[in-house]
Amino acid sequence: MPAKALPRPCTSAGAHVQCRRGAPAARPWSVGVAGGAMKGGAGGRLVAAAAGERSDAVQAAAVAGGKHHVNGSAVAGMDKVVTSTVGKSTNILWHDCPIGQPERQKLLNQKGCVVWITGLSGSGKSTLACALSRELYSRGHLSYILDGDNLRHGLNRDLSFEAKDRAENIRRVGEVAKLFADAGLICIASLISPYRSDRSGCRSLLQNSSFIEVFLNVPLEVCEARDPKGLYKLARAGKIKGFTGIDDPYEPPSDCEIVIHCKAGDCATPKSMADKVVSYLEENGFLQD
Amino acid sequence: MPAKALPRPCTSAGAHVQCRRGAPAARPWSVGVAGGAMKGGAGGRLVAAAAGERSDAVQAAAVAGGKHHVNGSAVAGMDKVVTSTVGKSTNILWHDCPIGQPERQKLLNQKGCVVWITGLSGSGKSTLACALSRELYSRGHLSYILDGDNLRHGLNRDLSFEAKDRAENIRRVGEVAKLFADAGLICIASLISPYRSDRSGCRSLLQNSSFIEVFLNVPLEVCEARDPKGLYKLARAGKIKGFTGIDDPYEPPSDCEIVIHCKAGDCATPKSMADKVVSYLEENGFLQD
Repeated sequence: MPAKALPRPCTSAGAHVQCRRGAPAARPWSVGVAGGAMKGGAGGRLVAAAAGERSDAVQAAAVAGGKHHVNGSAVAGMDKVVTSTVGKSTNILWHDCPIGQPERQKLLNQKGCVVWITGLSGSGKSTLACALSRELYSRGHLSYILDGDNLRHGLNRDLSFEAKDRAENIRRVGEVAKLFADAGLICIASLISPYRSDRSGCRSLLQNSSFIEVFLNVPLEVCEARDPKGLYKLARAGKIKGFTGIDDPYEPPSDCEIVIHCKAGDCATPKSMADKVVSYLEENGFLQD
Repeated sequence: MPAKALPRPCTSAGAHVQCRRGAPAARPWSVGVAGGAMKGGAGGRLVAAAAGERSDAVQAAAVAGGKHHVNGSAVAGMDKVVTSTVGKSTNILWHDCPIGQPERQKLLNQKGCVVWITGLSGSGKSTLACALSRELYSRGHLSYILDGDNLRHGLNRDLSFEAKDRAENIRRVGEVAKLFADAGLICIASLISPYRSDRSGCRSLLQNSSFIEVFLNVPLEVCEARDPKGLYKLARAGKIKGFTGIDDPYEPPSDCEIVIHCKAGDCATPKSMADKVVSYLEENGFLQD
């Protein structure tokens, strides 16, 4: 349960609200506010942002000379302060007032991060994701699985399987994973994600230690022998083009955080795979606030 | 803390794992599995899905005649069952084994939902979102704010402000909000979202009662008088085109869940606005498991 008195004091009186960040800014940057006095908050950060997703953003960029503006929510790795107007008061400065990642992590007693599971089709990524989610839950931790196929039913339904759209698919999953990590969750992303560049693009969205790449190192012949949906058979028959491992490359990670090996006849159980990841999370402080 | 014995029993022995859903399916649908016997689980639902975001999805659709496949994670409003292969075993049926929304809600002691705040630029959407997030946190509840401007720095950075991209911007926020609600969070989406059709598109992604539309009914003249970033001034001067309320329409909700009125000189405080939403959430059972 959170503290009754929040760590960042905010006052709300009348139609005015003003909140200040208690700690100095880690990465100070400041921008001007059109039509009002500019006032540096603690840490010297100040941002103009009105609510809205349309012209506001365009204009805010123009007003501030193209610097970053963040409005309302906290985004991992990005400083966030908001000024808003309530009632007839103008240019009320609102410094990082929304409950941020630290508060959410306190509530959850864990640290938000992304566990990115990569490997060939049939290597057991979903199996590991499931087992990991269950292990974490059994310890009282909140995780959420982002799965490539799943997201293609919703967020990414507009994307084809052409090269450009495949990259966009992974980019979006990375961006959403970042939001979940910012929300304080242990986000488990399960995607073949065959190219190093795509994976490193997702890694770059987060603070490095919060991106935990797990490589399911299962030989092609093992995955092909499993072939749970007959996809390898179809790929071998030329009925699927560009299938990872057959006629499209898989680029194994060169320095990922966790490698899980599996050889023919010698594969770890889902639980033992999950335990390996849980141990990493535990040793690296993710399973506590 | 979660139960030590999970509500959905899953066994994990050797390289095999098989889990079954305890409760009957709400919306049964089933599909075949290529290369293996088809077996109906509890509720008659069964899905083929291997891990991966590429050809798997294409092929799964082909295999199943285009029916839905869900892999790994639970998605609100969509039934989810997974079959996977571990070790040398093939076609192991995995029925909704991942920790699902009910378990996450239990962990959080709340029900996942989307609070969608709509209104003109300057109406106070971000202010309300912030205050709401703080109020919920003070009661021990986990929320997350999705803000249109924020997302344009990441997930939606590829979108312009043309009509088509504006709609896509809102669609994506709706899809991400749905994921957060499925994760068990109270997701606060703060966007002008001026068109009814876009908002109702987002509503349709969720079970109806889980989409709570909050209309900040603030007259244009009040928003324009606030004009925290000078955007209205620029719009009036013709320097911004298509600005909501000036030369682009705002379609007010006709039957939203909550309306917060504000007239000149008579606007609620952020806290009282937030309290109104919290009361709604409380009365409708969202603040308990």
